[in-house]
Amino acid sequence: MRSTSRTEAFPAHTPAASQIFTTVLSHGPLTRSEIAARTRLSAAAVTKAVRPLIEAGYLLEDVDEDARQPSLGRPANPVLVDGGRALFIGVKMTGDELIAVLTDLCCRIRVARHVPLTTHDPKAVLASTAALVQELLTEADGFGVRVQGLGIAVSGDVDRAAGVVRYSPFLEWRDVPLAELAAMTTGLPVTVDNDVRALTVAEQWFGAGVGLSDFAVVTVGAGIGCGLVVHGQVVSGAHGVAGEIGHVAIDPAGPLCHCGNRGCVEAIAADSAIVGKVREVTGVQVADAAAALDLAHEGDPGAREVYARAGEAIGRGIATVANLLGPERVIISGEGLAAYDLFAEQIRDAFAAAAFGSAARCDVQTRPLPFEEWARGAAATAIQSFIRSDTY
Amino acid sequence: MRSTSRTEAFPAHTPAASQIFTTVLSHGPLTRSEIAARTRLSAAAVTKAVRPLIEAGYLLEDVDEDARQPSLGRPANPVLVDGGRALFIGVKMTGDELIAVLTDLCCRIRVARHVPLTTHDPKAVLASTAALVQELLTEADGFGVRVQGLGIAVSGDVDRAAGVVRYSPFLEWRDVPLAELAAMTTGLPVTVDNDVRALTVAEQWFGAGVGLSDFAVVTVGAGIGCGLVVHGQVVSGAHGVAGEIGHVAIDPAGPLCHCGNRGCVEAIAADSAIVGKVREVTGVQVADAAAALDLAHEGDPGAREVYARAGEAIGRGIATVANLLGPERVIISGEGLAAYDLFAEQIRDAFAAAAFGSAARCDVQTRPLPFEEWARGAAATAIQSFIRSDTY
Ligand SMILES: [Zn+2]
Ligand SMILES: [Zn+2]
Repeated sequence: MRSTSRTEAFPAHTPAASQIFTTVLSHGPLTRSEIAARTRLSAAAVTKAVRPLIEAGYLLEDVDEDARQPSLGRPANPVLVDGGRALFIGVKMTGDELIAVLTDLCCRIRVARHVPLTTHDPKAVLASTAALVQELLTEADGFGVRVQGLGIAVSGDVDRAAGVVRYSPFLEWRDVPLAELAAMTTGLPVTVDNDVRALTVAEQWFGAGVGLSDFAVVTVGAGIGCGLVVHGQVVSGAHGVAGEIGHVAIDPAGPLCHCGNRGCVEAIAADSAIVGKVREVTGVQVADAAAALDLAHEGDPGAREVYARAGEAIGRGIATVANLLGPERVIISGEGLAAYDLFAEQIRDAFAAAAFGSAARCDVQTRPLPFEEWARGAAATAIQSFIRSDTY
Repeated sequence: MRSTSRTEAFPAHTPAASQIFTTVLSHGPLTRSEIAARTRLSAAAVTKAVRPLIEAGYLLEDVDEDARQPSLGRPANPVLVDGGRALFIGVKMTGDELIAVLTDLCCRIRVARHVPLTTHDPKAVLASTAALVQELLTEADGFGVRVQGLGIAVSGDVDRAAGVVRYSPFLEWRDVPLAELAAMTTGLPVTVDNDVRALTVAEQWFGAGVGLSDFAVVTVGAGIGCGLVVHGQVVSGAHGVAGEIGHVAIDPAGPLCHCGNRGCVEAIAADSAIVGKVREVTGVQVADAAAALDLAHEGDPGAREVYARAGEAIGRGIATVANLLGPERVIISGEGLAAYDLFAEQIRDAFAAAAFGSAARCDVQTRPLPFEEWARGAAATAIQSFIRSDTY
């Protein structure tokens, strides 16, 4: 995280304090003893960590005057996060547009905006980002609360610790020190992360992954991505690559992938692969993914078969994840879910056939993903950085 | 772990104390400040935890009279584990034989034994196990040190926490409460685990995985297995299935696998798959894996091609692991490495071709695996249970 000076420090100065706050954020309201049980910390440690968080207004005592038994004293009251105590901005950068949201501390979206991108030049993208962030900072003034951080999510190889976009195919960027540049232009502490990992953080802290130590998020659309949580932490890979379900090769006789291999899941099920195959099979020169989808929805059997094959590839990719990691849940999301009715059955069937033994007991869910959700994921990484500040 | 009464408790009564001991076990000798740096614990906590471990004889001060600067006092001396302080027994059960080792606390093999198995009946296998363990207990008397635990490694679906072999195809066992039964017949605390996971624990604590938070062990032979360490912990899967690299399906037109799918890595590269394919291709009715290997080593081109294809399948399986998890290292091991010269190049080439981006930077190593190593893995799980005893 690159940090500047306008923001205030979060009053959790130890890993235990951050863990306590995160627990209340994801699971609250909770009593102090419930927090102690969940975090395996002592009641004394919880009480000690909660006090400054309440004093600074990040946690509230949930005082229920009727239910409260006076003899138990105040610490029996549940505590919860005051979502309105701080604001965050999340920006998702795609090759076509910038999507930005203003969220509260509980990652609830207050305002959403998007602007088209006409160039991929980093300076121009950064200027557009700064203007968009400025708009949201103005909106934030209306809430009377400070914006404490900015998260930016980019597809591709992103080094969060260094704040650098190593390689983003859609933006055609290599080694852009995005966190530093954005901190200079916005004056906010900036966290940059891979977009799928950012979405996974949002699911882990605020979504379908809450309470699960092992789950996966699979995104379907322009690319096929995967965020993995193992032992309660997002997997980043020793060399920055992880979750590349799109390049799990399932058929040596399959179509050529941009990575150089044949039969990758992405070469069969990504938007561009589907568009190309629909053109080839039907002879109709569909313009884009939406047109290919329309053709299939109109009942064209060739187009429908292309979607069925895509679903099968996605299902086999998910089974590979399940066979290797045995996650409790897989959440399928992404703009490609617009074709849900055309391939959901194939995803499930292929998964069930290829999952080994009890790996098939994995709960495979689909979650429709409005475009703001990607930006919300970026905001979640900013919230994460804020809570796990480097003060300890 | 099922525990009986003959053994003594390990004097580490908190997770931090276990962590400190494990750190010295894997990385020692270390000074107290080196331990504090590695464990991110305070120097005071380290000093407090080390004292009873020294008093009980599990740790030794490495007093170097010449190098020692008297002004720094004793705590500057490195501490190391006294491997001779305790003994452990590890047993690997296969469909054909029992392999057992007596190890010290540093998992060094002192004695190794194996006996053939003539039946898979759990009672008979347990009686043979008890006799073999008794032999090693007698050997242990000669060292004048107690045996503190027994580890048993079995291939298949093993629930370590419950101590139950849920399903072992080679032994044809279902739901055998092995830990409880073995504790009754041997009088020792018993840990049972999947054999590949046990081998992975041995690599993590005492082998090529020391110091790595993310690595994989891939075993080649009768089956194709995979142990995964992610974020410093062995992956077990939410439903007990994980690391099933053998059932990663890489070719929908490939041979039928016993799991019901086509083109699993195991259906191409396991011993029985190789034997079957060599017979089919060469027309020679080779009796077993050793005979198939002989034929290939004699230069039979058909047989050599079968091994080359097996190597390619293994390499693609490893690339799938690397693309999803980005481990720092993959250690290939197992009795199938006897064919190393016939498929090592294909493993490396297929891995390099299918690994995505910097996932290819993963260090792929091969480690020859004497038959005792599997039993040593079982002993490593017993050492792990002993150190992480349930006293806290
Ligand atoms: Zn690819
Ligand atoms: Zn299979």
